Amino acid sequence: MKLYSYFRSSASYRVRIALNLKGLPYDYMPVHLLRDGGEQLAPAYRALHSDGLVPTLVDGGEPIQQSLAIVEYLDETHPEPPLLPRGPAARAYVRALALQVACEIHPLDNLRVLKYLTGALGVSEEGKTAWYRHWVETGFASLEERLANDVRRGMFCHGDQPTLADLCLIPQVFNAQRFQIDMQPYPTIMRIHDAAMTLDAFVRASPGRQPDAQ
Amino acid sequence: MKLYSYFRSSASYRVRIALNLKGLPYDYMPVHLLRDGGEQLAPAYRALHSDGLVPTLVDGGEPIQQSLAIVEYLDETHPEPPLLPRGPAARAYVRALALQVACEIHPLDNLRVLKYLTGALGVSEEGKTAWYRHWVETGFASLEERLANDVRRGMFCHGDQPTLADLCLIPQVFNAQRFQIDMQPYPTIMRIHDAAMTLDAFVRASPGRQPDAQ
Repeated sequence: MKLYSYFRSSASYRVRIALNLKGLPYDYMPVHLLRDGGEQLAPAYRALHSDGLVPTLVDGGEPIQQSLAIVEYLDETHPEPPLLPRGPAARAYVRALALQVACEIHPLDNLRVLKYLTGALGVSEEGKTAWYRHWVETGFASLEERLANDVRRGMFCHGDQPTLADLCLIPQVFNAQRFQIDMQPYPTIMRIHDAAMTLDAFVRASPGRQPDAQ
Repeated sequence: MKLYSYFRSSASYRVRIALNLKGLPYDYMPVHLLRDGGEQLAPAYRALHSDGLVPTLVDGGEPIQQSLAIVEYLDETHPEPPLLPRGPAARAYVRALALQVACEIHPLDNLRVLKYLTGALGVSEEGKTAWYRHWVETGFASLEERLANDVRRGMFCHGDQPTLADLCLIPQVFNAQRFQIDMQPYPTIMRIHDAAMTLDAFVRASPGRQPDAQ
């Protein structure tokens, strides 16, 4: 398997955790989002992913895009350990937590979105930072409330094994810390983060440990 | 089953199509996003969905949030007709198309995002409209390229039966048309749209046919 990835991309980070948890070896194919105007926009990569976004997984057949689709694919093709719990209601809960990160926080703070804000819309650097923090803080406040009050929570978002929800949450915490967002208001999120970082699969997937880390 | 929905919410629209395709009756619970400062932000609704976003599905147990999690739940609990194809690679392809809409287009053009642009960031109405169009046009150009060139396409995004991908695509076309975006550059998307609109399940789910339509 080949994973086209950028070390700081939190969507790539989700997939790296999944591959590690399942013990699947893969070739790391670096795609530098900032070099030469963005390698993800060059024709070679766009042939794999017309959106010009990372990650893309190639597992023999057609390239697979979108991190959550990739993780579900890996979970269907390599079921152990499962990244979704048993039972439709529990699975829906975990998917909803994952989508709260993947749809309500992450897309707003994507590199190309921040570029459009300061470029086409002429928003200041301060405005851009305020925007970034606003969506992380709005999303984390909501997630903290849910996770703190839900009996389904264990060491991880759902029970004591990492699921798709943790795969989305932990990379988003990394991003928030990189942008110096105060994590004190989110103690439940941080307890889950700290539990995840005791696992080798999460540590080895972290941005600083990737071959393209700078 | 109860679906908390707003007629114009394209995330709600996705779930309405799924319920109709599967022939599942449900109680329509209107949540007006613009009335009284937004009914979705009132405590009654936030008890169901801490993010204050529609839709939410209640099917006996805990409320289920996030449209894609709801559709996967419905597909697991009521498998016929299936909304995902057979085989992990085909399923990944359909999920990736759905996520291209749900993660790369829709979150950027959400009501609360547009409000933040013109409010906190002081972006002009013209700037807001340009932003809206930019993300729809960027996303549709990429989807058109993929769909036009992929042999897996049939009458619908994947084959001749509607899937999760069509459930996301058709409501996004509705939004684009509402904002008078020229759909001429996207003939494949429009052919799929027109095929969908021959099906009663799609027509009955459309915004203008909902009890809270104005």
